[in-house]
Amino acid sequence: MAIETFTFKITHGCKNTMARRGVLSTPHGIINTPNFIFCATKGAMKSLATADLAATGAEIMLSNTYHLMLQPGADIVAMNGGLHKMLDWNRPMLTDSGGFQVFSLGHGGVANEIKGRRNFSPHCSKTLLKITEEGAFFRSYIDGTKHWLTPEISIQVQRKLGADIVLVFDECTPFHVDRKYTALSMARSHRWELRSLAEFKKNDNGTQALYGIIQGGIYGDLRKESADFVANNDFFGQAIGGSLGGTKAQMHETVEMISQHIDRSLPIHLLGIGGITDIWHGVKNGIDTFDCVYPTRLARHGGALCAPFSNGGKEFINLNNSCYREDISPIDATCDCHCCQHFSRSYIHHLFKAKEMLGGQLLTIHNARFMVRLMETIRRSIESGTFKDEFKKWTIF
Amino acid sequence: MAIETFTFKITHGCKNTMARRGVLSTPHGIINTPNFIFCATKGAMKSLATADLAATGAEIMLSNTYHLMLQPGADIVAMNGGLHKMLDWNRPMLTDSGGFQVFSLGHGGVANEIKGRRNFSPHCSKTLLKITEEGAFFRSYIDGTKHWLTPEISIQVQRKLGADIVLVFDECTPFHVDRKYTALSMARSHRWELRSLAEFKKNDNGTQALYGIIQGGIYGDLRKESADFVANNDFFGQAIGGSLGGTKAQMHETVEMISQHIDRSLPIHLLGIGGITDIWHGVKNGIDTFDCVYPTRLARHGGALCAPFSNGGKEFINLNNSCYREDISPIDATCDCHCCQHFSRSYIHHLFKAKEMLGGQLLTIHNARFMVRLMETIRRSIESGTFKDEFKKWTIF
Repeated sequence: MAIETFTFKITHGCKNTMARRGVLSTPHGIINTPNFIFCATKGAMKSLATADLAATGAEIMLSNTYHLMLQPGADIVAMNGGLHKMLDWNRPMLTDSGGFQVFSLGHGGVANEIKGRRNFSPHCSKTLLKITEEGAFFRSYIDGTKHWLTPEISIQVQRKLGADIVLVFDECTPFHVDRKYTALSMARSHRWELRSLAEFKKNDNGTQALYGIIQGGIYGDLRKESADFVANNDFFGQAIGGSLGGTKAQMHETVEMISQHIDRSLPIHLLGIGGITDIWHGVKNGIDTFDCVYPTRLARHGGALCAPFSNGGKEFINLNNSCYREDISPIDATCDCHCCQHFSRSYIHHLFKAKEMLGGQLLTIHNARFMVRLMETIRRSIESGTFKDEFKKWTIF
Repeated sequence: MAIETFTFKITHGCKNTMARRGVLSTPHGIINTPNFIFCATKGAMKSLATADLAATGAEIMLSNTYHLMLQPGADIVAMNGGLHKMLDWNRPMLTDSGGFQVFSLGHGGVANEIKGRRNFSPHCSKTLLKITEEGAFFRSYIDGTKHWLTPEISIQVQRKLGADIVLVFDECTPFHVDRKYTALSMARSHRWELRSLAEFKKNDNGTQALYGIIQGGIYGDLRKESADFVANNDFFGQAIGGSLGGTKAQMHETVEMISQHIDRSLPIHLLGIGGITDIWHGVKNGIDTFDCVYPTRLARHGGALCAPFSNGGKEFINLNNSCYREDISPIDATCDCHCCQHFSRSYIHHLFKAKEMLGGQLLTIHNARFMVRLMETIRRSIESGTFKDEFKKWTIF
């Protein structure tokens, strides 16, 4: 088949940090890196039409295998011509393996741990029934039906979904387990990754590329072992998974630690991270792509992203606050998004008070455009050799 | 002030019915009639961005004085430059007087009665505290604060909101009251209409035009008296308000009855009616404009409007139904809306199953475009002398 080959080229490095500017080519177009991947979890950006996301200049979105295999089912997506056609998105896409959700819902609160939220309260849901060498046996959160997710099934489902970039099936190890469990889990993840790779190669026609996942929690030797494992196998790219620590500071440290071990010839994705300062720290340590529901979730709750240096160090303003009741200025006078160009803070505040969905929709447009502009700023700073200065401006208060 | 004068010109009549094609000019542009007015109740179309409504070809939207005077308040809207500027809508707008909501919430279920829904169950809410000659005293549904709405206050609020077409303050008489109450209420509404007109004239600078409201319930002599009252006073247009009967059939009959008495030189608006067959019946009886939340509410519940003659007499299909799970055709292959051009029934069904807001957003676009195309079809049929044939095609099964 005459399909554009997947390539990853680094076009600019950075003198004093590991930051790099690159271009990741896929059959559905290029991704300029560093970049942010927007989350269409269940096959839809929450409250944002695909065309409106495209208008922000976003280059890539992801969908979640776990959600889509349960509803509508991979065969229905395939019947619709795959995710790109179903969602009317003609740019690159990524799907995860489903592992994160199976284990996150099973162990409880993994996402909170990974992102270093202090108010983490571990609890076990009843959805993860069994983890064996074969894979994970779980209950659907929708209708209680029982399902297996194995490396082979995950890859088969991701083939049907048809995203450009697909991920190996791994166990997402929580933070509250000990080193011994983390090591055993990592070893099993590696076996699962090899099975994922074997299944992927069975039907590899060049339309999809597979990322390995680096596990090992907060343990340097384990992360090194896992990074070597990924580098020594035939993966197109690599994602950093598993626990990054119990606090935001530890998350930054763990990413820095992992970056010492990683194969820097491959594209590097940091799973589930998307705060503004977290992204700057990630880029400094060589991360090429990020994903997170944060910008869109924040929007639906009334939060509009803004440059922390213009807002006393805070990454957003909360449009629910009564101080915006009579504020007829736009959210950000320097922003070129549809929301800032046409509507006042006062109006958006009113929409949230009146519980009008349009408020969340307009803020989602702003936050998406904000992320696109943020990544443009980061890329330009690497190109022009000003990354370190920009890093300071955006992260130090 | 050099502002475009309000005019209403009838360009085409209809040989066998009272249907007419006209052009209503306002300072914010023209409305081709017959036409449909979309409801931005609280200053926002539910789940639809103003720009997306404009893209459907919609020519006019309305907002509700009652809701806006309570949240965000008329002064805040004025501070934002008025409704047009706040909502970023550069086409004609209408505001109602607030009367309908005050009395509807007070009497309970007036909307259900007017539209002839059989499952009407009268109940009294605690929001309407007192009706006096002065006006209505009511409690805010938001925070329980007490407010007066009088003819003078309604007009003053509507001045601040700044819509092109504004309405007199009337009592919206429910169906379950007797002839005597209807007659007394109508007489009071007439006194309120004269006070509304006097208040309107105090600050009339040509930027707004006032509609009178014809009351009288289902009683022919009262409707005639009320139609004469409106015709004999200096209103730019007229709206049909109050009860139209207890069933859909009676609603059609009542509209037909009223049409015999009405001043046909003025534009005629039928308040709160928007079903497909109801619109055809209304146009047949000379109605120029309609408004209703039906198309947008239906969309949020999974209903996509379609021509009844292509759907066994039904006005919509319900995308929640499992028959659409594997249906990869568009909702309507003949529709040029963003939803039908880009997405499958299967995908929309999935969005509703997955409780993704985007499902309602996309169906709202479809239903809005459907209404715009319906009104175009009606206007073209009057222009070309085929109204009677089209009427049959759309209403008889």
